[in-house]
Amino acid sequence: MTDLMTRRFDTLGPYSPLFYDRPIEFVRAEGVWLTDVNGDRYLDGYNNVPHVGHAHPRVVAAIAEQAATLNIHTRYLNDRVVDYAERLLATFDDAIDRIVFTNSGSESNDLAFRIATQHSGAPGILISDFSYHGHTQALARVTTGLRAHEGLGGHVRTLRVPDLDGQDRGLPADAVLAAALREADEAIAALQADGHGVAAVLFDSLFSTEGLNRVPSGFVSGLADRVRRAGGLVIADEVQSGFGRTGRSFWGHGNHGIVPDLVTMGKPMGNGHPLGGVALPAALLDEFGPRNMYFNTFGGNPVSAAAGLAVLDVLRDERLVERAHANGRVIRDALAALGSEHPWIGVPKGDGLFFGVEVYDRPAAAADALPDPARTKAVVEAMRDRHVLISRIGRHDSVLKMRPPLAIEPPDVHLLLAAFSDALTEVEGRANAPISAF
Amino acid sequence: MTDLMTRRFDTLGPYSPLFYDRPIEFVRAEGVWLTDVNGDRYLDGYNNVPHVGHAHPRVVAAIAEQAATLNIHTRYLNDRVVDYAERLLATFDDAIDRIVFTNSGSESNDLAFRIATQHSGAPGILISDFSYHGHTQALARVTTGLRAHEGLGGHVRTLRVPDLDGQDRGLPADAVLAAALREADEAIAALQADGHGVAAVLFDSLFSTEGLNRVPSGFVSGLADRVRRAGGLVIADEVQSGFGRTGRSFWGHGNHGIVPDLVTMGKPMGNGHPLGGVALPAALLDEFGPRNMYFNTFGGNPVSAAAGLAVLDVLRDERLVERAHANGRVIRDALAALGSEHPWIGVPKGDGLFFGVEVYDRPAAAADALPDPARTKAVVEAMRDRHVLISRIGRHDSVLKMRPPLAIEPPDVHLLLAAFSDALTEVEGRANAPISAF
Repeated sequence: MTDLMTRRFDTLGPYSPLFYDRPIEFVRAEGVWLTDVNGDRYLDGYNNVPHVGHAHPRVVAAIAEQAATLNIHTRYLNDRVVDYAERLLATFDDAIDRIVFTNSGSESNDLAFRIATQHSGAPGILISDFSYHGHTQALARVTTGLRAHEGLGGHVRTLRVPDLDGQDRGLPADAVLAAALREADEAIAALQADGHGVAAVLFDSLFSTEGLNRVPSGFVSGLADRVRRAGGLVIADEVQSGFGRTGRSFWGHGNHGIVPDLVTMGKPMGNGHPLGGVALPAALLDEFGPRNMYFNTFGGNPVSAAAGLAVLDVLRDERLVERAHANGRVIRDALAALGSEHPWIGVPKGDGLFFGVEVYDRPAAAADALPDPARTKAVVEAMRDRHVLISRIGRHDSVLKMRPPLAIEPPDVHLLLAAFSDALTEVEGRANAPISAF
Repeated sequence: MTDLMTRRFDTLGPYSPLFYDRPIEFVRAEGVWLTDVNGDRYLDGYNNVPHVGHAHPRVVAAIAEQAATLNIHTRYLNDRVVDYAERLLATFDDAIDRIVFTNSGSESNDLAFRIATQHSGAPGILISDFSYHGHTQALARVTTGLRAHEGLGGHVRTLRVPDLDGQDRGLPADAVLAAALREADEAIAALQADGHGVAAVLFDSLFSTEGLNRVPSGFVSGLADRVRRAGGLVIADEVQSGFGRTGRSFWGHGNHGIVPDLVTMGKPMGNGHPLGGVALPAALLDEFGPRNMYFNTFGGNPVSAAAGLAVLDVLRDERLVERAHANGRVIRDALAALGSEHPWIGVPKGDGLFFGVEVYDRPAAAADALPDPARTKAVVEAMRDRHVLISRIGRHDSVLKMRPPLAIEPPDVHLLLAAFSDALTEVEGRANAPISAF
């Protein structure tokens, strides 16, 4: 163990997660490239927080200038936070016209729960059966995708999120949809029968933690309709899918043809500066506002607002959403082609610059193919050996997760794909890899 | 209403709190001085977040340099967060040797509840009957000092915090102490009888929201003993009282002669940069860590760590804690002298550079004197007219709250005191003020 790791364990403890068998110590980064303590450079195929690129000079300058000028809470007037609120709200459907600023996705989802629970007068929550939305106590009680000692609350019902490219591959989409919505009906009925009612459904438009599931068309809108009929609100968690990540639209919920009641934001919003928010219709804030003295000390301070504004500026001026769409198509086509060479990887999943492939223990097309987490990990480590950062997700930790900053340019896209092809070949060829099925 | 206020209400809504009858629009700040949009300067007698002074050049430079170099989560190794963790932990008793970084005091207190509740296996919480510790759903359920629609949880019991300079003035300290501890015993017994058990007591060492209560010696330690005997943990919320604010010690709990089990931090920690933390003994983290995959995306990023380190550097190099002690004594002496001229203000309350006086409707010494919120507000507004920022707190909003950045220098201390003397005289002399008792 390195000296730094010993010092880290002696202060932060050994439980704070670290990537890789041999963790990497980074010392600087720029665009889509990080440099480690030895001077070696790594291509970032993983990080969505440095959304417009590591250490983007416009974001850095905005933070530095505003920090040198004024950093204060919102109990005094300041135009910076209002400028940002206007710019951000302009990206939403007209129905969503208010914003509450927070410091993280966790604070945002926790606040959305407070608003929804107070609105409906009922605690009941519908949530995917393999998802993660933050670390507060209220969110721990709806956490299904990782360890949380609290366990699910009695007010929570879980839904299996269908995946036409995963567990439901080969099945007719309309049958999968009907089954999923029937399950939603049953969960709502169960919440009502048990006296919990329905406060909200909370979902990530990309179903990232689940493994980038491809849901049948009509699943999200059907779920939203049912929750609203039961008196609940629809919360779109855009921490992963927002700010143009999917290339197809600025907000992931746009890809499902719905307008949510509450939109929660975090990670990419300030390019790493701690910044989150909850966007909502005025009517909901007008209900919550008088009932609660909600005040967030750091939320909406002018430095955070300046960071957020700079991110919006760069997204626009560098046409990053359009580029996410274009680069995403190139990658998806390349991944599909790699699937012919390496039949043990599934079809490309995800949208825009959030993409992945499931890794199986035998050809993905085989009826008895099973997700293969060990081989997935081997690919992640093989990519690390090639100095490209990726990770894995999904119920079985068997979906390779790739999510570069939106600033990635075609030459680096090709480097990433070349490394990936090479890593797949290496893992496939390993004598000790469990690939006897081939 | 100004154009900016209209724009603010149209985006953030009208419920987000604003100070003063005529809110002030600030555009820049430096040290203890803020400048409004008209170029008028205000002395900051209120803000504790810009702890080492507004826009302190060393903090600004640290943020700017690190943001231009690397801003990444802690799943990779980085020495900056470890450097900060070591420096911060060195300020605590040896028993407290681990730190979890968060982005706010709310995230910190929410996490402390998770740790305490899991440790004790019981949900029961003891809390002051007029306090505030944050805005998450779990914290809303223990909020007694401001509006939270959730209302108190069934697992919560409240305690009246004694005040030898307020509601209990004139009573013998030992009788007040005995009554307060008897109340604690009863609250613990009630939690146990109702099956909630005792997870924790959470308190602010300065009892700021309560009104800067002067508690009898032995109150906090007696409470801590009782909670521990019942299997609960002691959580010191140092969001207000930490980082040398009290002048007497670096952490407010030091003034009560106890070592807590969990220490939560926020506001001043990053001088305005969103930063919080929970410090605790390794044994508690070793229990929580394996049971929960706790990960905080922004928590402990190198920019936040750089901001935190710079704050510690400035506190040390500018001897701000010692200065808080010295300036605090000057202020307290002056406030005591002002009390002779204006008998309707109470004795000076608080510690170090967090101080206040209660405003009464007649001489504070009178047996029938009552807190006078209208007159308190009049003093706050009269100070605003003199371009000095203060506010008010307490159950009756009748305690003038003064809490300048620790960077304040003696000349500005004297300006603040002169303005205060002047404001008291003005309010006292107003024909329409309810001072007929004089």
